[in-house]
Amino acid sequence: MSDTVFGRILRGEIPCHRVYEDAHVLAFLDVHPIAPGHTLVIPKQAAPTLDQLSDDAAAAVGRVLPRICRAVLAATGATAFNVLQNNGESAHQAVLHVHFHIIPKLADAGLAIGWKPRPLALDDGAALATRIASHMTEA
Amino acid sequence: MSDTVFGRILRGEIPCHRVYEDAHVLAFLDVHPIAPGHTLVIPKQAAPTLDQLSDDAAAAVGRVLPRICRAVLAATGATAFNVLQNNGESAHQAVLHVHFHIIPKLADAGLAIGWKPRPLALDDGAALATRIASHMTEA
Repeated sequence: MSDTVFGRILRGEIPCHRVYEDAHVLAFLDVHPIAPGHTLVIPKQAAPTLDQLSDDAAAAVGRVLPRICRAVLAATGATAFNVLQNNGESAHQAVLHVHFHIIPKLADAGLAIGWKPRPLALDDGAALATRIASHMTEA
Repeated sequence: MSDTVFGRILRGEIPCHRVYEDAHVLAFLDVHPIAPGHTLVIPKQAAPTLDQLSDDAAAAVGRVLPRICRAVLAATGATAFNVLQNNGESAHQAVLHVHFHIIPKLADAGLAIGWKPRPLALDDGAALATRIASHMTEA
């Protein structure tokens, strides 16, 4: 397990407001919520970023996301929400242990998103997709 | 399959710049990228929002996210990135078919995040966590 605050939570060295736990996943309230019910879902595997997480651990997190989302919505009354997972300091990651934020969207709270699209043609989509696909490894 | 633009892509009625496909998942370039390599990962199951997606479909998407993220990073040279999944119009969802954005974070492109934390004490964390946990259903 990782020597981050989340690793210490997983080891029981720091308390958390637990929402859900199974053999591979823990979910608990963010202690600095940006909306009521802001929940973190983390794998027990100590990968710093999602690209370094094992397929099995990522599948285990993915599998429980819908159920945890439903529970957060039911408990808070929210109907809209964002799921956000940040990787790297410049991408707003503060703890180097993979975590998915589930953030209810309310009129006065939740995630604010800055979105500046540009034409895909600038990137030469066909060539770019081929290049990404060429980097896909076998499962 | 859904009668959305993503449903039509899955049915082959609209072309896409495909990055990856398996029995349960399709990944392709966003046609309105906010960074080069901005990729969408969608389940073939036609759920409008993540809370309505089946456990198995969510696990299938989760399982391939790390590999697709690695391929996007390798192809673009980015080292930081965000994964974002929006649910509901007020939460910035534009297409009512579950989709995960993989967005490389570059100095001049990528996701801008507005984040206004508040003390968890305002929400009575212990009671809130218990309430969310009480809404968790069996797998």
